[in-house]
Amino acid sequence: MKIAYLGPQGTHSEEVCRHVYHDEEWELLPFPTIDSCIRAVYNRELQECLVPIENSLEGSVNMTMDALAHEVNLYITREIAWPICHHLLSSTPHGNIHTFISHPQALAQCRQYLSAHYPNAKLQSADSTAEAARLVALQGDGYAAIANLSTARIYQLAVRAKNIQDNEQNCTRFVALSRNPHVPAQHQPAKTSIVCKILGNKPGSLCSILQEFVDANVNLVRIESRPARTGLGEYIFFLDMEGMVSQKNLQTALAGIRKKSLWLKNLGSYSCHVLPNVTCD
Amino acid sequence: MKIAYLGPQGTHSEEVCRHVYHDEEWELLPFPTIDSCIRAVYNRELQECLVPIENSLEGSVNMTMDALAHEVNLYITREIAWPICHHLLSSTPHGNIHTFISHPQALAQCRQYLSAHYPNAKLQSADSTAEAARLVALQGDGYAAIANLSTARIYQLAVRAKNIQDNEQNCTRFVALSRNPHVPAQHQPAKTSIVCKILGNKPGSLCSILQEFVDANVNLVRIESRPARTGLGEYIFFLDMEGMVSQKNLQTALAGIRKKSLWLKNLGSYSCHVLPNVTCD
Repeated sequence: MKIAYLGPQGTHSEEVCRHVYHDEEWELLPFPTIDSCIRAVYNRELQECLVPIENSLEGSVNMTMDALAHEVNLYITREIAWPICHHLLSSTPHGNIHTFISHPQALAQCRQYLSAHYPNAKLQSADSTAEAARLVALQGDGYAAIANLSTARIYQLAVRAKNIQDNEQNCTRFVALSRNPHVPAQHQPAKTSIVCKILGNKPGSLCSILQEFVDANVNLVRIESRPARTGLGEYIFFLDMEGMVSQKNLQTALAGIRKKSLWLKNLGSYSCHVLPNVTCD
Repeated sequence: MKIAYLGPQGTHSEEVCRHVYHDEEWELLPFPTIDSCIRAVYNRELQECLVPIENSLEGSVNMTMDALAHEVNLYITREIAWPICHHLLSSTPHGNIHTFISHPQALAQCRQYLSAHYPNAKLQSADSTAEAARLVALQGDGYAAIANLSTARIYQLAVRAKNIQDNEQNCTRFVALSRNPHVPAQHQPAKTSIVCKILGNKPGSLCSILQEFVDANVNLVRIESRPARTGLGEYIFFLDMEGMVSQKNLQTALAGIRKKSLWLKNLGSYSCHVLPNVTCD
C-alpha cells in the first residue's frame, strides 16, 4: 500500500508519516504540493495521503480544507497532532551568519529569536524548511536554515541552536485521507467532521444549526468558515464534533442540520488523537 | 495626512487607495508588508492604513486578522469591496510564452486558463503581482506576468489577454485602520466588528453567544475563528454584525457577549460598502 506526503525528504509531514506508517506494509511517497497529494488519492494512484489541516498558530490549512469541500470526495480516516520545533542549522558549528533561509511561516515563527540574536541578518524564503536545509548545505558559510532535525541528518548540517520558535504552543494537526470511510474502534474517543452550506442568510441560521448540536447533546469542538466561492459574504462551515456517525445522537444532529443546509458533506469519523510524547530533541 | 498601503506601485491595494483617498489632503505611501502598514499606524508614524482583510476565494487575510486581535489596538473606520481582475501582460503583444510570473494566489486563480492555453509553460512565484510585472519587463521575450492594468502602464507591458481568472467571483474586501474610532453617518447601513475569546469550552458556548445576537435582533453577517495562540483546539472568534455601537440593541448584544467572554475587543463601526461600479477594463 502507498501513502503520499508533502515532500521533499525531511519535511514535518515526512516525520509524522514515518512515525504513523512504520510497518513494512506501507510505502511512503513524497509529492511536491498538498494538492498533488490529495489528487493522487482521489485519482486512485495510491491508497492514502497524509496532509496538514490546521496549525495552532497559523490556523487552517486552506488548501486542504478547500480541496475537501469543493474538489474531491474523500474521508478523514485518522488525525495526528504533532509538535512543530524549529532549529537553527548551518554547515559549520561556529562562525558568523548573514542570511537565514526557511519557509516564510518558520521565519515568522522565530522572528523574536532572530531579531534578538541576529538583528542584522537577511531573511530568505524557501518553499519548505527541508528545501531551506538543502540550500544552506549548498551555499555553505554564512548561511543558516530554520528546519527540523531530520534535515540536519539528511543534509549533514550542524545544529547551532534548538527550539528557537517564539511560541511553545506550535503544533500541527495532520489528517489521513482515503476514498473509503473509516469505522473507528468502539468505546474509544472519536470525532466526526462535516462541511455544509447553510440555507438562507438570516440572522439565526448559524445559531439554529448550532442549536441542533446542543439539543442532541453533541459536543462541537471546532467551527471554521471558508468562502463558498459564490461571492463575497457567502460562506461554508466546517464543523468537527465528538462521536462517530454510528451514534444515535450524532445521527439526530446531522439529520437536523441536513434539513437546514443547501448541501452537507460527511468527511468521516476517526479516532481522536492527543499530542504524542515526542520531544524536539 | 498620510495613508500606508501594501506596495510596490501597481498593487491592487494602491488601486483601491487611489480610488478612495483621491483628494489632495492625503499622501499615499507604499509599505513592503501588511504588517509594516499596520505597525506604522499603531506607532503613530501616519494616520491610517488600507489593508486587505478578506478575499471571496481565498478567505481571511490572516496577517490582518491576527494583528488586529493580538498585536495592535486599532479601529476599522472604512471597508471597501473591490473586484480582482487578472490580466496577461508581456513585453511584446505576440510571440511564444514559456514562463508565467505572478503572486502564487494569482497563478492559482488562473490555473484552468493557463492549463488550457499554455499547458507546457513554467510557473514562477513573485512577492506581488506588481513585482511580477516588474520582473517581466526586465526579462523580456518569453515571459508573461499575471497582474492588473496599472502595472501594464507602469512597466509598459502589452495586454495579451484580459480577465483570465477562472472564477468571476473574485473580490477582495479592504479595511482602513486608524488609532481613533469612526462614527458612521446616521441612517446609513453600518457594520460593527468585534473579536472575543469565549469563556469555557462547553458544547453550548458559541451557541449561547450567537443567541445573544438573535435575542437582541442583531444580524450577524460573518463569523470567523482564528487560533487563540494558546494551544491546538483553542480559538478566538471574529464577529461582524449589522448596525453601529451607538444603537441600543447592539449595545445589549455586546454587553451579553462580554459577560460570556474572557476578553472582547471592539474593532469599530463603519459604513457598509457595496461593490463599486469598477470594471476590469
